[in-house]
Amino acid sequence: MKVGALLTSAGINIGLCVLFWSLYSILRKQPQNVKVYFGRSVSKAGRRPLLERFVPSPSWIVSSLHCTEDEMLTTAGLDAVVFNRVLVFSIRIFSLAAILCVFGILPLNYFGQDMNHVLIPSASLETFTIGNVKERSRWLWVHCVVLYIISGVACFLLYLEYTHIARLRLLRLVQTNGNPSHFTVLVRGIPKSSHESFSSAVDSFFTKYHAPSYLSHLVVHKVGKVQKIVMGAKKAFRKFKHFKGTAVDQTCRSVTYQCCLCGVSSNSFQLLPIEEQERENPCAKDSNLDLSDEDCAAAFVFFKTRYAALIVSEILQTSNPMKWVTSLAPEPEDMYWSNLWLPYKQLWIRRIATLLGSILFMIIFLLPITFIQGLSQLETLQQRLPFLKGILKGKYMPQLVTGYLPSVILQLFLYTVPPMMMLFSTLEGPISHSERKKSACCKVLFFTIWNVFFFNVLSGSVLNQLNVLFSPKEIPMLLARAIPLQATLFTTYVLTSGWASLSSELMQLFGLIWNFVRKYILRKKDDSDLIFSFPYHTELPKVLLFGLLGFTCSVLAPLILPFLLIYFFLAYVVYRNQFINVYCTRYDTGGLYWPIAYNTTIFSIVLTQIICLGVFGLKKSPVAAGFTVPLIILTLLFNQYCRMRLLPLFRTFPAQVLIDMDRDDQQSGKMDAIYQRFHSAYCQSSDTDDIPLEGIKTSSTDEDKGSSSGESSCKEGANQPGSDLSHPTMKGLPVDRLRTAVRSLAFMIRIQRRGLSQ
Amino acid sequence: MKVGALLTSAGINIGLCVLFWSLYSILRKQPQNVKVYFGRSVSKAGRRPLLERFVPSPSWIVSSLHCTEDEMLTTAGLDAVVFNRVLVFSIRIFSLAAILCVFGILPLNYFGQDMNHVLIPSASLETFTIGNVKERSRWLWVHCVVLYIISGVACFLLYLEYTHIARLRLLRLVQTNGNPSHFTVLVRGIPKSSHESFSSAVDSFFTKYHAPSYLSHLVVHKVGKVQKIVMGAKKAFRKFKHFKGTAVDQTCRSVTYQCCLCGVSSNSFQLLPIEEQERENPCAKDSNLDLSDEDCAAAFVFFKTRYAALIVSEILQTSNPMKWVTSLAPEPEDMYWSNLWLPYKQLWIRRIATLLGSILFMIIFLLPITFIQGLSQLETLQQRLPFLKGILKGKYMPQLVTGYLPSVILQLFLYTVPPMMMLFSTLEGPISHSERKKSACCKVLFFTIWNVFFFNVLSGSVLNQLNVLFSPKEIPMLLARAIPLQATLFTTYVLTSGWASLSSELMQLFGLIWNFVRKYILRKKDDSDLIFSFPYHTELPKVLLFGLLGFTCSVLAPLILPFLLIYFFLAYVVYRNQFINVYCTRYDTGGLYWPIAYNTTIFSIVLTQIICLGVFGLKKSPVAAGFTVPLIILTLLFNQYCRMRLLPLFRTFPAQVLIDMDRDDQQSGKMDAIYQRFHSAYCQSSDTDDIPLEGIKTSSTDEDKGSSSGESSCKEGANQPGSDLSHPTMKGLPVDRLRTAVRSLAFMIRIQRRGLSQ
Repeated sequence: MKVGALLTSAGINIGLCVLFWSLYSILRKQPQNVKVYFGRSVSKAGRRPLLERFVPSPSWIVSSLHCTEDEMLTTAGLDAVVFNRVLVFSIRIFSLAAILCVFGILPLNYFGQDMNHVLIPSASLETFTIGNVKERSRWLWVHCVVLYIISGVACFLLYLEYTHIARLRLLRLVQTNGNPSHFTVLVRGIPKSSHESFSSAVDSFFTKYHAPSYLSHLVVHKVGKVQKIVMGAKKAFRKFKHFKGTAVDQTCRSVTYQCCLCGVSSNSFQLLPIEEQERENPCAKDSNLDLSDEDCAAAFVFFKTRYAALIVSEILQTSNPMKWVTSLAPEPEDMYWSNLWLPYKQLWIRRIATLLGSILFMIIFLLPITFIQGLSQLETLQQRLPFLKGILKGKYMPQLVTGYLPSVILQLFLYTVPPMMMLFSTLEGPISHSERKKSACCKVLFFTIWNVFFFNVLSGSVLNQLNVLFSPKEIPMLLARAIPLQATLFTTYVLTSGWASLSSELMQLFGLIWNFVRKYILRKKDDSDLIFSFPYHTELPKVLLFGLLGFTCSVLAPLILPFLLIYFFLAYVVYRNQFINVYCTRYDTGGLYWPIAYNTTIFSIVLTQIICLGVFGLKKSPVAAGFTVPLIILTLLFNQYCRMRLLPLFRTFPAQVLIDMDRDDQQSGKMDAIYQRFHSAYCQSSDTDDIPLEGIKTSSTDEDKGSSSGESSCKEGANQPGSDLSHPTMKGLPVDRLRTAVRSLAFMIRIQRRGLSQ
Repeated sequence: MKVGALLTSAGINIGLCVLFWSLYSILRKQPQNVKVYFGRSVSKAGRRPLLERFVPSPSWIVSSLHCTEDEMLTTAGLDAVVFNRVLVFSIRIFSLAAILCVFGILPLNYFGQDMNHVLIPSASLETFTIGNVKERSRWLWVHCVVLYIISGVACFLLYLEYTHIARLRLLRLVQTNGNPSHFTVLVRGIPKSSHESFSSAVDSFFTKYHAPSYLSHLVVHKVGKVQKIVMGAKKAFRKFKHFKGTAVDQTCRSVTYQCCLCGVSSNSFQLLPIEEQERENPCAKDSNLDLSDEDCAAAFVFFKTRYAALIVSEILQTSNPMKWVTSLAPEPEDMYWSNLWLPYKQLWIRRIATLLGSILFMIIFLLPITFIQGLSQLETLQQRLPFLKGILKGKYMPQLVTGYLPSVILQLFLYTVPPMMMLFSTLEGPISHSERKKSACCKVLFFTIWNVFFFNVLSGSVLNQLNVLFSPKEIPMLLARAIPLQATLFTTYVLTSGWASLSSELMQLFGLIWNFVRKYILRKKDDSDLIFSFPYHTELPKVLLFGLLGFTCSVLAPLILPFLLIYFFLAYVVYRNQFINVYCTRYDTGGLYWPIAYNTTIFSIVLTQIICLGVFGLKKSPVAAGFTVPLIILTLLFNQYCRMRLLPLFRTFPAQVLIDMDRDDQQSGKMDAIYQRFHSAYCQSSDTDDIPLEGIKTSSTDEDKGSSSGESSCKEGANQPGSDLSHPTMKGLPVDRLRTAVRSLAFMIRIQRRGLSQ
């Protein structure tokens, strides 16, 4: 590929970026899009003069950059801050790398061989890689020193970020003071016995062994039959809604119709009023709904102090590790109820099965990737698709096709990956949304690194040498040969996948279209359920992949760095804007994405060093190769130190902090108020209607952006007053079946009305 | 190698075995050897008629077999039972394998090819391996079915043993009721502060955060300067001893001389009386000895209940995981004091350094192994050592050399491995003897499997293909080709290393000679310090290696199985005898050798299946190969289940059991008596004289069998009355320096007298 082709590709992408960003700055000022671009804070969308609304303006960039970390922490949660820190880290390290490599290494590479240089626009991009340096060159020590500096600074910055995020994590623990999840232990694998119910088994076990700290419990129930009735009724209701929707709707709130492009009164964005009778006591109502024979072998157990809950969650309870399995409960809004019913015994099988499933998926996915490889080589392409020969004869078409098309096709295929991985993660049986998303994030990350990076690198140059792929000794040499050659593909990948995906993220094309369809075609009034939570499982692997590309190409093919740096700058602006305005933070892992990002970065650094070792070997520079070995060892030692010193803080909470918090609350008398909230927080009633829907939606592709039903339950959780501590076990009250049925029907109708009014 | 050569080798070994075993049955009846063969229970050695003493008798075999598991548990500890169970498991599975393979597979292999069979004694051993079966043979399904049966039964037996040992481990916990180690937490990494001592830091931390259960503590002290004086004085004293040893000796106890082969009065075996003033209060005395500025950042913290100690040991204490690091303390007799002084921060570096060290050692060790490989091929041997040509021209010499010599040389080299690995394990910084031995056991095991098994297999057939060694895809095929060829070497290895090492273990040659030298040349009277603890780190890897050989060869080269089965039977008799009579159990890991044995066995089974997969592939039997794949998956699933279901019991103790024990003791009022023992149990005084010596001896090769000083301290630990709870922190009393010096000198002299009288 020539420099010209690269510049063509860059030009197209810059044009697209400018176009999309300008469009965005106009679209965001349109009142009808306020739900799409200001999902988090609808109040911001004031009325503006008509002229101002159609002039592109960069004000959003300024406000995105002005947001401080504290503001972000309070509005978007710790995970958003972690994501932000990953971007900051990338900008810092690649700024340094770009300066060092572009001014230090690029000239060395370009003037490496004594050859006739053509004009730069038509020079091959390979002239700028280390492949152009002579064997046994005296100048390879420069590459080695730059590698040392980049590795050292990267480790130093990583350590700073790690300590910073660990501190924030502890701070978050202290700040989310009355969080019921700190006091709650989820017990699974309660042994079945014929003479006592799960509830009394839990009660007797914890009264016997943890009497001083045990408060109460709540058995998880399967809403089996009732759930089916609700589902069926819901479907029927939906059809019914089409006919007399507005009539029912008007009983709830005033309806305002508006035409396209006009302003709209702010009351169309207000939260719907939740019916009084539902807010009163959702749990007590629900306890009549469920049948006692549908109890699961799982329960929430509440403790008097955070420390007691931590102890119970970490200690092995009985001599059978598959019974009475304890873990700290996820936060109430984070609960993934539908997996809670799974027997604990199944989980290990599910984990293995999904692991095998994802590996199989990765292997099958190799087929399109192999095809794409062909596209980057013009001759192969013409051989495979002979009908393209006519098209490819023009002057600019070949450049366009080789520089742009492969990445676009790859990108399209990659869109199917996150939903698949999310499905695998759901089948694995996680009990919280955040755990599910984190697991999907890891899977997508492995997938991306393996299928985009390794397979591209190795099969592009050694397509027919798949057998050698499995010989670990050969890999450094293979990579060393392939990386400089494949740097071109990666540069275009940064341009297309990176820049373009940022624009599409900013534009929220899907949301925009869906909003339009809902508003003007389906004529729905309220779209509060369009607020998604941030898709970490697609965005974090993307950013980390670009980090990997940056590290591996930095010393070998530095031409990628300026493009990458621009990507990270844009990403910084865009994602901050999205966090502040667009996405809602329904749940938070508490910074658990950081270890993933950290591990990937360390992997990238070590891989870079190994590749450089291979390259120095190929270039027959024993001094440079010799000096790289201690660098690898030092990096691994640093990694080990971080794992010892900081990783435990991401796995558990320190006793000291929890005990201090408990003491403060006990002295200030806040404890009783906290205890009041336990049962309402982990009450299943508000979710019984959502669970099946959510469970189904998850399997489809749109759930990974947060389902609408999940959204509504999230809001209720915040509104629920907790006042039902008088029902300690919350189930099995001896009520008349008929009364129950009538009540449940009334409940269902109320749910439907709520669903409608949204 | 021919069947004749194998029989020659077997003949020699059987002869040697009979000789050694007869010798043993005579020697054990000699009163002067009673310390060597009955170290554990000296009272058994009654006077016998002279004639009976010189007639070989098998009575010891009977008594060895009659010992029940309960007796073994009480006399030799849980580790001995685990070792015993490993042997029982091996006997069971290889009995089955021998029956199936010798009667089912051996004939198939022998009549596999349509070839002219020579007379069996001069038939090549390879005729009996799977190498003799035709390609695409109809009979390969028999091999596959036998593989299924062996794998299935092995997993079933493994599961039985696992549950049995897990139950015994819990039983041991309940039975060692008043063990202070259950109540004690070892805290390391106490933060240094200028304004308070370690002792008050520990006190304030645990009073603040664990007030309800905290009892007292004991800061670990470095005996730095005093220790050096003691060392110097000891050396001086040793020289002094040579001149006037007996004179000092006579002040302690009566001396009885005896000539060779006569009976001896039993009082020469009695335990030496320990001086009254030392027994009174060793800790209080010691608290004057140590200087407060020699305190370490480590302390024993005692809790009121076992459960409280478990909690503190498992929970992360503060937000810095490198400070206030807690773990359950080892049992007092198990403490490895000299490593307790190491700063906690160093440990991870030490671990990595020793890991690298052991890997380096393994690589260097390849050199002699490669040489030995040459010896098994007669032609190579004659080429390399031409002066042997004359010797090798005889009729029996070549058979002797190829069948016997390689194993003997390999064996001699292998003798240097355990001491080296023990040294590495010591440098790693373990705080208990059992942990050190367990770590050495793992290292020796890795070493044995890699260097004896893999390198023999791979380099024997593919000596020059070291490059292919690192390609994981090739390994199954390589193994499949090599195992049948190398089965001969392994069979002779079983004969020499297996049978002969059992005889030497039984004879205790080293102990016997040392006993003779001490008694009749050095004229020492008491050899109570010759009682070693069982060398698990040499014996367990040996047994597990034979298990690996058995599994991998079973289906492919079944001729090894009868010899192996005889080995396991002999081992069962010999090791039980040794456990009952010879070795002293000073410390116990509580069954932690079982997970090592279990993991190795699973590894062996899966490796066998992978090799069989390769062999079936080579023999072009897609059906057999296809059926082997699900078997591998099933075995791995079984392994995963065991890891979930049983492994956690070997990592921690269940809360339920501990709480029940605490409650029983509290109700029966035993707690106060237990509390009384804490400080004396973990008092460093009785060990101050032993630690430096032990620390030094460890680096040499003889410590792996338990040093003499360690032995004596073990006994003292049992004699110490605990009555010093009145000194809660046991250090830093403001005493006159002069008085301290005088006292310490007096103490040293007492120590020397004790040392002398031993």
